Amino acid sequence: MAEIIRISESPKHENQEVTIQGWLYNKRFSGKVRFLLVRDGSAIIQCVVVKSEVSEDTFEKTDLLTQESSLKVTGVLVADKRAPIGYELHVKEIEIVQIAQDYPITPKEHGIDFLMDHRHLWIRSKRQHAILNVRHEVIRAARDFFNDRDFVLIDSPIFTPNAAEGTTTLFQTDYFGSPAYLTQSGQLYAEAACMSFGRVYCFGPTFRAEKSKTRRHLTEFWMIEPEVAFFDLQDDMQLAEEFVSHIVQTVLKKRRAELETLERDTSKLENVVPPFPKIHYNEAVEILKKNGVDFPYGDDFGGADETVLSAQFDKPVIVHHYPAEIKAFYMKRDPEEPQFALAMDMLAPEGYGEIIGGSQREDDYDTLLKRIREHNLDEEAFRWYLDLRKYGSVPHSGFGLGIERTVAWITGTKHVRETIPFPRLMQRIYP
Amino acid sequence: MAEIIRISESPKHENQEVTIQGWLYNKRFSGKVRFLLVRDGSAIIQCVVVKSEVSEDTFEKTDLLTQESSLKVTGVLVADKRAPIGYELHVKEIEIVQIAQDYPITPKEHGIDFLMDHRHLWIRSKRQHAILNVRHEVIRAARDFFNDRDFVLIDSPIFTPNAAEGTTTLFQTDYFGSPAYLTQSGQLYAEAACMSFGRVYCFGPTFRAEKSKTRRHLTEFWMIEPEVAFFDLQDDMQLAEEFVSHIVQTVLKKRRAELETLERDTSKLENVVPPFPKIHYNEAVEILKKNGVDFPYGDDFGGADETVLSAQFDKPVIVHHYPAEIKAFYMKRDPEEPQFALAMDMLAPEGYGEIIGGSQREDDYDTLLKRIREHNLDEEAFRWYLDLRKYGSVPHSGFGLGIERTVAWITGTKHVRETIPFPRLMQRIYP
Repeated sequence: MAEIIRISESPKHENQEVTIQGWLYNKRFSGKVRFLLVRDGSAIIQCVVVKSEVSEDTFEKTDLLTQESSLKVTGVLVADKRAPIGYELHVKEIEIVQIAQDYPITPKEHGIDFLMDHRHLWIRSKRQHAILNVRHEVIRAARDFFNDRDFVLIDSPIFTPNAAEGTTTLFQTDYFGSPAYLTQSGQLYAEAACMSFGRVYCFGPTFRAEKSKTRRHLTEFWMIEPEVAFFDLQDDMQLAEEFVSHIVQTVLKKRRAELETLERDTSKLENVVPPFPKIHYNEAVEILKKNGVDFPYGDDFGGADETVLSAQFDKPVIVHHYPAEIKAFYMKRDPEEPQFALAMDMLAPEGYGEIIGGSQREDDYDTLLKRIREHNLDEEAFRWYLDLRKYGSVPHSGFGLGIERTVAWITGTKHVRETIPFPRLMQRIYP
Repeated sequence: MAEIIRISESPKHENQEVTIQGWLYNKRFSGKVRFLLVRDGSAIIQCVVVKSEVSEDTFEKTDLLTQESSLKVTGVLVADKRAPIGYELHVKEIEIVQIAQDYPITPKEHGIDFLMDHRHLWIRSKRQHAILNVRHEVIRAARDFFNDRDFVLIDSPIFTPNAAEGTTTLFQTDYFGSPAYLTQSGQLYAEAACMSFGRVYCFGPTFRAEKSKTRRHLTEFWMIEPEVAFFDLQDDMQLAEEFVSHIVQTVLKKRRAELETLERDTSKLENVVPPFPKIHYNEAVEILKKNGVDFPYGDDFGGADETVLSAQFDKPVIVHHYPAEIKAFYMKRDPEEPQFALAMDMLAPEGYGEIIGGSQREDDYDTLLKRIREHNLDEEAFRWYLDLRKYGSVPHSGFGLGIERTVAWITGTKHVRETIPFPRLMQRIYP
């Protein structure tokens, strides 16, 4: 028996007889030679079946093989400069595992609803495969960044008794007779943990029951949220730019092939290195005005505003010092200009919108209690959160990065629904 | 200004003046010398304040400092072999950030309910800090294991339209007017993904609404689930033993200090290297009988049975070939002895119970459809899952490892509630 290898391992087996296990991606007949494109998840390889070199039985199997049929192919790996992976397989034997009948996703165009209904199969397609490989790399790079910097992973709970980001977009569940809510952010828990570990991050799914059908919204999305003790807004912005740069540069280094498949203009990504431009909210409003946007001072930026702002820069831009009124209760205000929160958002270039939101947190007990009351939040539910300001309170800051929007930006994918394996949208929980 | 460092970085700054930012862990007075134990999340360091060497003001601050007060201490790092981290700080200056009043968790004993109510503070304690550091390392090692082996991370959805592991323990939520369930396992989605990527894993929180108050149960726990195409039960068991061994050996290598803090007998962990013992269900039943357990043949093992079984071995033991009747609908049966499922569970030593459950999956369309009907499952909801058996079905296998039970075993912690930052139990979602 020949050694079973993954297609990506081909360079280690040049001129050796190997067996590849996978699925038929495509085939092409040319007289007495038949070309099978076989994928195994690691790569696609062209398998060359020459009539005079194989048994009649083997040659006939190439007739039977349909798109997505599963098979094992044994042959010799031969270097070929024209091949995308640099090798071809000169076939000796074919074993059919299963013939696929009428695979629904053909090379022709399909509507988005059809593709979403067949997401379990659609992820086999080249483009989806590449996007999800980039997602894998983004997540790996994100975790490595914090792990290598001595941050401790703190998984925040999914079931929470209270809401961090407003109560209108909560999913509720029955928890043994009482209501519980699905988390919208792990931040509050990360704050507790950073008082124990100094530097922490949480990373898990978060939920927003938003009745919104834009290309930037999912009901279930993954967020990574670092939180650091003895850290102010300046530190926070610097960490955020180093972090985003690390992710982008890692993907550029390790996922060139995928970015090529996606026809991503990588020159725009090469540029993503610190320092990023950082502008005050007032400055951002000025920019909008100069660009003819009729923007009411004091409001938060909408998607269209973000696109105008990010278009001014060739890197992600950080906007800081938002009006405190429009920001969350837990954000600290600037002592010098208390109408502004020590908040910051990072907007991705090319109109991909906000990928990071962060702030320095209110660390004074009385002020925080006042804010909780002003926001009509349940004081009792926040008792533990207030405790953090009682027992060794310190300045601390953090942010959250949305994985799907980051992947959308890096891969140049318009709609976030393609950046998560099984997207959950307002009108979709299948498959 | 002296350089601000983390305590763990002390070796790089011997004899240098540095500033440490953290919290007072404990203090001890001895005449004209005062010893402050300061923690910053990375380690604990003894800070020595000698009356004749500091200002009166600085010396008086040591009186004010209470447990968990936050502070900045500047001084010179001096090597000291008796110190746990090998260094002491000879203090020049102290800056108090906040005095903590009446920190509730004192060195005296507290009841478990009190500690759980103060989980946000309890995690600052030495033992909890050590357990959560080991958890961090277990998760990092688990991800690295699969990342380094070319597995692709596929985040499975939390909202699902149907149940993988039985319908009695589901958490339900209102999803824009229709019911949705919180995932109990990402496996079915990982199966779809492994047909695209060959090797995948999912890793996220999973939910079981079990009305059970044992020391092994949480309503919300994290599970890592690899799934591999062209993989049978034998391959699966081998992957599982290599995986668990990798995790244990990594923790032994990188978290010696934590295991010491936890007074864990590490000799029992050193031994966790492949191959692990693998026994047939029938053999396991024989062992129970020999040990005087009155066990009805055909049943699943309970916690007490698992303890008896695992006590026979000095490594984790894998039990395979469970009666098909007691196992999930998606497991393939052994063609040679169809009363048994190609299933396997791994039991941790020392009575820590099942840490892995896995199987080869049914890959035949008709058989799977028959099982879905036998189990009265919603055929329509499983349409996409059945598709995987229609379009290039291949033998495939996988397993799930529960993070909290694994951490409980490795750290020698009796109850899983201490192995997750903010545990969710039947009667607890606070803090």
